[in-house]
Amino acid sequence: MPNPANNPLAKPIAEFIGTFFLVLTIGCTVIPGTPGVIAPLAIAAALMAMIYAFGHISGAHFNPGVTVALIIRGKCPPKEAAAYIVAQLAAAALAALVVGVLVGYPQAVMTIKDVKAALLAEFLFSFALASVVLHVATAKSNAGNSFYGVAIAAVVLAGAFSVGGISGGAFNSAVALGVGMMKMVAFADLWIHVVANLSAGAVAGLLFRAMLPDDR
Amino acid sequence: MPNPANNPLAKPIAEFIGTFFLVLTIGCTVIPGTPGVIAPLAIAAALMAMIYAFGHISGAHFNPGVTVALIIRGKCPPKEAAAYIVAQLAAAALAALVVGVLVGYPQAVMTIKDVKAALLAEFLFSFALASVVLHVATAKSNAGNSFYGVAIAAVVLAGAFSVGGISGGAFNSAVALGVGMMKMVAFADLWIHVVANLSAGAVAGLLFRAMLPDDR
Amino acid sequence: MPNPANNPLAKPIAEFIGTFFLVLTIGCTVIPGTPGVIAPLAIAAALMAMIYAFGHISGAHFNPGVTVALIIRGKCPPKEAAAYIVAQLAAAALAALVVGVLVGYPQAVMTIKDVKAALLAEFLFSFALASVVLHVATAKSNAGNSFYGVAIAAVVLAGAFSVGGISGGAFNSAVALGVGMMKMVAFADLWIHVVANLSAGAVAGLLFRAMLPDDR
Amino acid sequence: MPNPANNPLAKPIAEFIGTFFLVLTIGCTVIPGTPGVIAPLAIAAALMAMIYAFGHISGAHFNPGVTVALIIRGKCPPKEAAAYIVAQLAAAALAALVVGVLVGYPQAVMTIKDVKAALLAEFLFSFALASVVLHVATAKSNAGNSFYGVAIAAVVLAGAFSVGGISGGAFNSAVALGVGMMKMVAFADLWIHVVANLSAGAVAGLLFRAMLPDDR
Repeated sequence: MPNPANNPLAKPIAEFIGTFFLVLTIGCTVIPGTPGVIAPLAIAAALMAMIYAFGHISGAHFNPGVTVALIIRGKCPPKEAAAYIVAQLAAAALAALVVGVLVGYPQAVMTIKDVKAALLAEFLFSFALASVVLHVATAKSNAGNSFYGVAIAAVVLAGAFSVGGISGGAFNSAVALGVGMMKMVAFADLWIHVVANLSAGAVAGLLFRAMLPDDR
Repeated sequence: MPNPANNPLAKPIAEFIGTFFLVLTIGCTVIPGTPGVIAPLAIAAALMAMIYAFGHISGAHFNPGVTVALIIRGKCPPKEAAAYIVAQLAAAALAALVVGVLVGYPQAVMTIKDVKAALLAEFLFSFALASVVLHVATAKSNAGNSFYGVAIAAVVLAGAFSVGGISGGAFNSAVALGVGMMKMVAFADLWIHVVANLSAGAVAGLLFRAMLPDDR
Repeated sequence: MPNPANNPLAKPIAEFIGTFFLVLTIGCTVIPGTPGVIAPLAIAAALMAMIYAFGHISGAHFNPGVTVALIIRGKCPPKEAAAYIVAQLAAAALAALVVGVLVGYPQAVMTIKDVKAALLAEFLFSFALASVVLHVATAKSNAGNSFYGVAIAAVVLAGAFSVGGISGGAFNSAVALGVGMMKMVAFADLWIHVVANLSAGAVAGLLFRAMLPDDR
Repeated sequence: MPNPANNPLAKPIAEFIGTFFLVLTIGCTVIPGTPGVIAPLAIAAALMAMIYAFGHISGAHFNPGVTVALIIRGKCPPKEAAAYIVAQLAAAALAALVVGVLVGYPQAVMTIKDVKAALLAEFLFSFALASVVLHVATAKSNAGNSFYGVAIAAVVLAGAFSVGGISGGAFNSAVALGVGMMKMVAFADLWIHVVANLSAGAVAGLLFRAMLPDDR
């Protein structure tokens, strides 16, 4: 539910702050290769808080795949989208640097053993994430609800618990940049996350339009 | 709070996607016979996200017992119900296949030691689940609330923690099909889940009508 | 946010079902003397689901101390209150019997080592619980909110984690009856929970009136 | 969303009760130096319940840094702010005394190894907390939402999981007084929390005004 903000920079600043705290929380809580309950809870909580704080300004994408879904849905002008994605990537990079200062980087890089399974996992939950965003935050029949942040955080939580051990559970190209810089995932593997994230966002956008052609 | 969707296929597609991600999350997180905090949290989160995403289209049943309750409540035409249940079962089956690709199936099938206790456990929490759905999503005096997905996910979470060790904690005939295909529960035991789920949905629907006869 | 229901029995039935699933979840998840994350999460989730399901019918007290607070607040006629408390106690008793069938009773009774600390702990969180209920569910300036069940469940969760090891963390005289019957707490200790629960409810009601004298 | 209350003392009483239960929960659940899932969940739950209960009276600051942010935002008169901060500190002190009675104080004081990292950690999450409060509870375009307490609790949860091991994770000068009295953090280190909390609140207030200059 994006609302026009007064300062023209408010939207990219909102995307920057939200993505920054998302990636900061990932960097401070994830121990690669170790399943656990804390990191997914912390990450979902950070994402939810940032969505509720900044959704009214920028729509709270914090994720290039979500931005792609919203472009196709017709709720994000491409020019604005460019500024959003730049802000998301810059925030992820800064968060990675701050994590280096606060806690350092983990010793062990996550190994992706099965590229096909990782691609499928990242695609499926990126699609689920983008679909949830489109329906809870942009569908006319859901206007004015208070649940949008809870729903979006919940699908990330479910995804992190479900396939975190397969692909790392990014579902987000900006997060992929951050975890690459923090040496949690090898840079050589990050194309998996980016390809899955962007294509899943596109599919979610197209499916939304096919299911609800009159909701523009 | 189902709303008319534009595409005539939108409703069964919504049921398909929601049930698919519910069963996918079950398959990726449950380790049969092992109590834990992660699987119930993940499953409740997936269910909640899907309810909020697709409730405005199909009512977000994702569960034949819930569909039965809504038929009796008068909020689901039987013809539509048939398409819903087909979509739910097909989605559960596909999710089971995808889990096989992503993580494989567990070695150990859950053993149901006490059939009567399992029937009672599945009946009680299926009844609780269907009752919560009827009251939060269809009662006139709750129209327009934002809490319906949180409430429905919460009763599944409570049920999974309470009786997961007794019956597996499905509370859902489509989930039962999925966990049977994933070899988490023996096919010979699945009648327990189906009988309990469908009868509990019917009882919840009848009780709703008895308690609130003027809410149609 | 209680609403008039059609069937005159709907209100006590709502109190019965809600309290039943609260005590059932306690009996199926609590292992006396063992701190853990699962039981408090399960109990808070069950309570939240039942509040959202039945709040529109009975106000979802499920707790004699809350009923006392609402009497003093002027939102529960004493005659209705009697039926509520009977339903709460009967539901707790039935739930205790069902727990015996489903999982049996624990071997170890919780020992309350320090009666004064237990009284203080039960009083403080019963007061917090009743105060939260009064403010989120009956204050005029909070009318129509969707957060009341989340808030009430949250204070029970915080209390269970904080003082569960001191007093058992009932904050509810009906729950006390249930845990007594399930042999989790000695019957000789239950006066602690009852005295603290009812007096805390009364204090919460009086304080609400003192803070907001014009909200009747 | 503060509303005028009838009794002139209602606002400071609301701040007192909310801060008291926040610090009480911290004292009963935190074991310094031990990472865990229970304490952050309990603390976030207590905070959320208190925000929803008392937000309609005092705005539910419970935190001097949040009060500073609201002064700068123009939503808290300085005279009122003084009463709020006094109530917050007094409540934290009383809670610390009650924790001594209920569970005693921990043996081990948390050691802050890296003052710069602790300052940065406390500043970042205090800034996030104050920003979330300003946007969810005071922005015009978010008026009437039901998510404000969930969002504020979520950022505290994320912060506690992320940097609890670095700085203790107070994000709140009143909490700092409480944990100092409870001997969880050395008094000599508390300036870190106070400086970070108050300056972060000020920065959040200034940034809000810069981003949304027309929202007064």
